[in-house]
Amino acid sequence: MIQKDEFTGNCIVREDSNSVVTLTMDQPKKRNALSSKMMDALLTELNDIAASPNIRAVILAANGPVFCAGHDLKELKGISHCDGHAALFAQCSELMMRIVTLPQPVIAQIHGMATAAGCQLVASCDLAVASDTAKFATPGVNIGLFCSTPMVALSRNIARKHAMRMLLTGDPISAEQAWQMGLISDIVSEDELETATRDLAARIAEKSGSTVKIGKEAFYRQIEMPLASAYDYASSVMTTNMQTSDAGEGIGAFVEKRHPTWRHE
Amino acid sequence: MIQKDEFTGNCIVREDSNSVVTLTMDQPKKRNALSSKMMDALLTELNDIAASPNIRAVILAANGPVFCAGHDLKELKGISHCDGHAALFAQCSELMMRIVTLPQPVIAQIHGMATAAGCQLVASCDLAVASDTAKFATPGVNIGLFCSTPMVALSRNIARKHAMRMLLTGDPISAEQAWQMGLISDIVSEDELETATRDLAARIAEKSGSTVKIGKEAFYRQIEMPLASAYDYASSVMTTNMQTSDAGEGIGAFVEKRHPTWRHE
Amino acid sequence: MIQKDEFTGNCIVREDSNSVVTLTMDQPKKRNALSSKMMDALLTELNDIAASPNIRAVILAANGPVFCAGHDLKELKGISHCDGHAALFAQCSELMMRIVTLPQPVIAQIHGMATAAGCQLVASCDLAVASDTAKFATPGVNIGLFCSTPMVALSRNIARKHAMRMLLTGDPISAEQAWQMGLISDIVSEDELETATRDLAARIAEKSGSTVKIGKEAFYRQIEMPLASAYDYASSVMTTNMQTSDAGEGIGAFVEKRHPTWRHE
Repeated sequence: MIQKDEFTGNCIVREDSNSVVTLTMDQPKKRNALSSKMMDALLTELNDIAASPNIRAVILAANGPVFCAGHDLKELKGISHCDGHAALFAQCSELMMRIVTLPQPVIAQIHGMATAAGCQLVASCDLAVASDTAKFATPGVNIGLFCSTPMVALSRNIARKHAMRMLLTGDPISAEQAWQMGLISDIVSEDELETATRDLAARIAEKSGSTVKIGKEAFYRQIEMPLASAYDYASSVMTTNMQTSDAGEGIGAFVEKRHPTWRHE
Repeated sequence: MIQKDEFTGNCIVREDSNSVVTLTMDQPKKRNALSSKMMDALLTELNDIAASPNIRAVILAANGPVFCAGHDLKELKGISHCDGHAALFAQCSELMMRIVTLPQPVIAQIHGMATAAGCQLVASCDLAVASDTAKFATPGVNIGLFCSTPMVALSRNIARKHAMRMLLTGDPISAEQAWQMGLISDIVSEDELETATRDLAARIAEKSGSTVKIGKEAFYRQIEMPLASAYDYASSVMTTNMQTSDAGEGIGAFVEKRHPTWRHE
Repeated sequence: MIQKDEFTGNCIVREDSNSVVTLTMDQPKKRNALSSKMMDALLTELNDIAASPNIRAVILAANGPVFCAGHDLKELKGISHCDGHAALFAQCSELMMRIVTLPQPVIAQIHGMATAAGCQLVASCDLAVASDTAKFATPGVNIGLFCSTPMVALSRNIARKHAMRMLLTGDPISAEQAWQMGLISDIVSEDELETATRDLAARIAEKSGSTVKIGKEAFYRQIEMPLASAYDYASSVMTTNMQTSDAGEGIGAFVEKRHPTWRHE
């Protein structure tokens, strides 16, 4: 069931189970830092998943005590030219946008500390299940490098003052606070984390894949529009969705009180 | 006091009491589904209210165990052409926009389950008072028809991850969660619901109608602007507001420590 | 340590301590109303602070039982021409924008009631520490003058329904609710308020001033952009930030496990 493929190098472990893929960052000693290699591995897998309509949900997890510590500071420091820095930050933004534009929902499974671009990774996922021991921080300000790209995702997830406090102090917030603020969608005890995340992914994977894809894409497009345009757009999305055979099947099954059989067209 | 007028057919009951109108969806067996007829009835009443400056607040309530179950799925399924679907979704969006553009505040009074476009109805109202037994869900994904138009309103009310969880799973949230997330403005016990909603409406109806109208319109316009433009716009709204006789009266009454008498001009 | 300078007249007290400036509104009998004079005094000090890179954080506090009651209604009423009102509202918006555009973070320290433009002042600051006895309200609707400019800041801090409830009823919310909703970043007991705020300011003042400046400016710019543009912009900000000597020093210190020494360039 577990496969380490070529793409992932030794950075991540990919597990395909039914129609759910789990990508586990696997560099515990490097605190799963988003090195160029790690980001490459994640992007390669995500691009592969994007092209695989049989995959219905993705779990993004991590091995070791830390979920993800953000950029690899040694790598960052070793780059002498600003073009190199620009390339690294562009790659990181590409990774975050790839999660958002992925047809399938991506669920972060957070068991430990998620900092800087690691916190951004959580914020960029569609859903996030955290154990009550997880923590979240954007501490770039402490090393003279403000978490400017992480805040793009963070400030679109939680209230401004809460985001500003994290960004200006670098202080971590607890999972409980993260749930209240909206940074995560689910909070469970540590020993339930894996099961809860898999159950959530499995339940989403049971839905019509085409419906989920239509909905996720529409979510991020409509949210950037003024209200009236958003309604025009979303109404046309609903109309298109209604013409799919899965909508016909789903509504039919509901009216006839039976389970639907999706074609995921 | 209660009047069933021609427009409402047998879909809704309209009650005018002092300057507050209560529109009660009254198709319990159809779980107050937003059929074309129901939406017509609501739109007709709302258009009438919009043209009646003596009305100062609107309560949107429902009879039967369910607040509103969203679209009438049998009606939706019976339409064979996508133009028919488009027309129905356009009518629904028109209804939601009509609530937002109504000069008077609209308060949802939710006693039971509000799902799909029924949840959107709650999200579209200016205020929402729910009993602690109410529930909210966007379960379209379970029938192959993603709640794409409901999410326009939902995602402008609550945090993205919380909205996404509702949209991707279809799971209901409790009234308590809805309050924490921002989907409703008030939560009360079931037996206090009607009184609490009427009190809230009555208190708003006591304010200057012209002031409330100016404020509600400005709220939805400024929220879509960049900060600097929003300030330019809102400053001009304040200046216009200051020239009304109600502002003169209100400030005068405050300084002189007496009750104001509004002209609601 | 305490200095009353010419600019502040008798409106505010300015205290410079290390690299933190505390501006204390000092018209308790006028409930620290934002009269034209008070706004002038605040703007003058803020403009001075903006030009002083050695200042790293600002605390905005108030003397007397009330934090700030908003506009001076007697002054507002005494103005006979709408140009005068427009000028006053423009000055107020300039003050709020000056807080947002100030290079240094501004922390509100709220011990009592903050109403109307006083609540807007809180919402406009980057951070806000309140004692659990503080209250917040936008009661303009009660005097016929809707809190249209306060709502620009308020509606960008808290959920729409929560903001609408405050605006339409004028009801105050508690500090506890304000924290849950996102209007304030910190809540402490009354006797800890001053110490907690100073500690927070001091901790921020210890960071690299140039880094904080870069981050604060980027925060408010990126938040108004669509996601993809925000990432393009924030990535370029990160690249620029990386070229500063403080980033080099901060990352170096982190890797070498020592304290950084900022140049605040």
